[in-house]
Amino acid sequence: MQTSPELLQPAAARVQIALGDRSYPILIGGDLLRDARTWAPQADRKAFALIVTNTTVDALYAAPLAAALAPHFARVRTLTLPDGEVYKDLAHLNLIFDELLGQEADRRTVLFALGGGVVGDMTGFAAACYMRGVPFVQVPTTLLAQVDSSVGGKTAVNHPLGKNMIGAFYQPQQVVCDLDVLDTLPDREMSAGLAEVIKYGASIDVEFLGWLERHIDALRARDRDALTHAVRRCCEIKASIVGADEKEAGLRAILNLGHTFGHAIEAGMGYGAWLHGEGVGCGMVMAAELSARLGLVSTAFARRIEALVARAGLPVRGPADLPPARYLELMRVDKKAQGGDIRFVLLDGESHAVVRTAPEDVVVDVITTLTAAA
Amino acid sequence: MQTSPELLQPAAARVQIALGDRSYPILIGGDLLRDARTWAPQADRKAFALIVTNTTVDALYAAPLAAALAPHFARVRTLTLPDGEVYKDLAHLNLIFDELLGQEADRRTVLFALGGGVVGDMTGFAAACYMRGVPFVQVPTTLLAQVDSSVGGKTAVNHPLGKNMIGAFYQPQQVVCDLDVLDTLPDREMSAGLAEVIKYGASIDVEFLGWLERHIDALRARDRDALTHAVRRCCEIKASIVGADEKEAGLRAILNLGHTFGHAIEAGMGYGAWLHGEGVGCGMVMAAELSARLGLVSTAFARRIEALVARAGLPVRGPADLPPARYLELMRVDKKAQGGDIRFVLLDGESHAVVRTAPEDVVVDVITTLTAAA
Repeated sequence: MQTSPELLQPAAARVQIALGDRSYPILIGGDLLRDARTWAPQADRKAFALIVTNTTVDALYAAPLAAALAPHFARVRTLTLPDGEVYKDLAHLNLIFDELLGQEADRRTVLFALGGGVVGDMTGFAAACYMRGVPFVQVPTTLLAQVDSSVGGKTAVNHPLGKNMIGAFYQPQQVVCDLDVLDTLPDREMSAGLAEVIKYGASIDVEFLGWLERHIDALRARDRDALTHAVRRCCEIKASIVGADEKEAGLRAILNLGHTFGHAIEAGMGYGAWLHGEGVGCGMVMAAELSARLGLVSTAFARRIEALVARAGLPVRGPADLPPARYLELMRVDKKAQGGDIRFVLLDGESHAVVRTAPEDVVVDVITTLTAAA
Repeated sequence: MQTSPELLQPAAARVQIALGDRSYPILIGGDLLRDARTWAPQADRKAFALIVTNTTVDALYAAPLAAALAPHFARVRTLTLPDGEVYKDLAHLNLIFDELLGQEADRRTVLFALGGGVVGDMTGFAAACYMRGVPFVQVPTTLLAQVDSSVGGKTAVNHPLGKNMIGAFYQPQQVVCDLDVLDTLPDREMSAGLAEVIKYGASIDVEFLGWLERHIDALRARDRDALTHAVRRCCEIKASIVGADEKEAGLRAILNLGHTFGHAIEAGMGYGAWLHGEGVGCGMVMAAELSARLGLVSTAFARRIEALVARAGLPVRGPADLPPARYLELMRVDKKAQGGDIRFVLLDGESHAVVRTAPEDVVVDVITTLTAAA
């Protein structure tokens, strides 16, 4: 009698992404990365495993992950990319292909994305393209990647003229969220991750929003029980939305609250100056304010979002040196834009989001109001 | 009452690729490209249309295509890439992204691949990746592209260490094979296309093989009736195989007769020195000989393939300066290779193909026998 690989895995919370023959589990728990049993479902003794990571994470977790993978594969190697959003481009993506082809990696090769959103997006896109598709596993090491970017199969690299403009929808084999790794995450990155956590509360789950208001300090302090609940709840919400709209035909776009403004800030300041989560945090404050100005949600609710974003340690004002006209220019190349019209994810009631356009003068006014004094 | 766009299209043979919600038609006939009605199914007056072509084809067909598209789109532009397999790389793919982003192209943008296999593969891959997927149309202008590369959704670029190593399975909205454009195709390119035509006869349809033996001279002379039959029959065969195995899980691999040897010749000589079809032609002779040596098919059938390849104006001997050891090295990074074993598409009976390994000494012996004297 054969035991299924899943049964051999260590105890952890599991959230399933239901996408037919592309379904996969998210594992959430402590001490998962170093445990060889975690990787049993990918075991293939004839296959090559490539860990893709960055310089920062490499020093902390690449060796333990390689050791945990070793019993399952013919060969395990690690490719270390420079750390930062500024390296999320075609040139650095090509370093992954160079390594794969240099190692004569075949179609059974499994890629492991060990890092934050940048590593996950690039590794996933490389897996989608290499030989037109090889399997990959997400091993997110930031809170942002655990609750958002590693789940749902969006992969991409940036282009100088726009973020995530070149990519694919490509699902991993599994996502492993080891909460232990968050202990080494810098406070600034922790806050950036909380922006995406708050997003789920603000645009989808008002009960979770209330829970966040009560536990935001515990989350910033890395309280294990609070983290387990938050990561699990975010993954559950994302799973339900991705399962219903894998390729963002409609519903899935509501996961982008704050992202239209946020992307403009990130791109306008030069990738890396503001973290993605910082742009999203400030962007949510702008989106909430815009929603209130349009009479879609109460001003009180917009203030509630702003207060929570601030308590998470995130900026609630746009950069002084980014004028509204530059936002508009950058937002017109947002992927949601159609026929020149910028489309925003707005709050249409408390914890309810909708995708729509907005009058340009109101948008400019909101940005002006919510920009830091020079 | 609304007339469906397909009913407005000009008279042409139609072959349907059946892939559920990704199904699409191939139109085969004369005077299609210049006829605005051909493009009615893609009409979107709010969308941007980008024709991607190369310097050679641009001069001949870009202006008439742009004129035929103009009534259907808000804006039509043409991007002209340099002509040749050597430019089928990530750097030139990025020129397409530069153009799209420079034009603020949104998700409704439709790409038109006007050219041979290189243009089709690159444009299709760009469409697959841009904003994680925009629609595209294949307008193949070589015989090779009409009968093979434009049909079935394989898109890719090359890497210095391997051909078509970076790509996606991504289906077009329609394929338009205008037979008029073959009148301007150089003889060498015509022969290269016939290699893929012969492939269908040699590995799948013995009746078509007999027809080809009777009509090979008419095809080389661009006889319209012969071309119509050949292009249609090849598309029908490919449609049935792609419909059953879109992502090359098994069956579809038999469309690669001659390609393992052929890719090694192409890569070994430097992309562009041998045309893809020339490599495939010579590669089919090698694959047939290998099949005969392994007792899978009669020597007489292998000779029959060699004679037809020669009559098509294609090389039947490998280049003098490419030693067998170099073939082996290059074939080990073929996408069909697994765990270091080279896998060949071999003839397992007349017009019947199978994917399997072969003893290395026999492979070396076949290459040695079929290499031109220095």
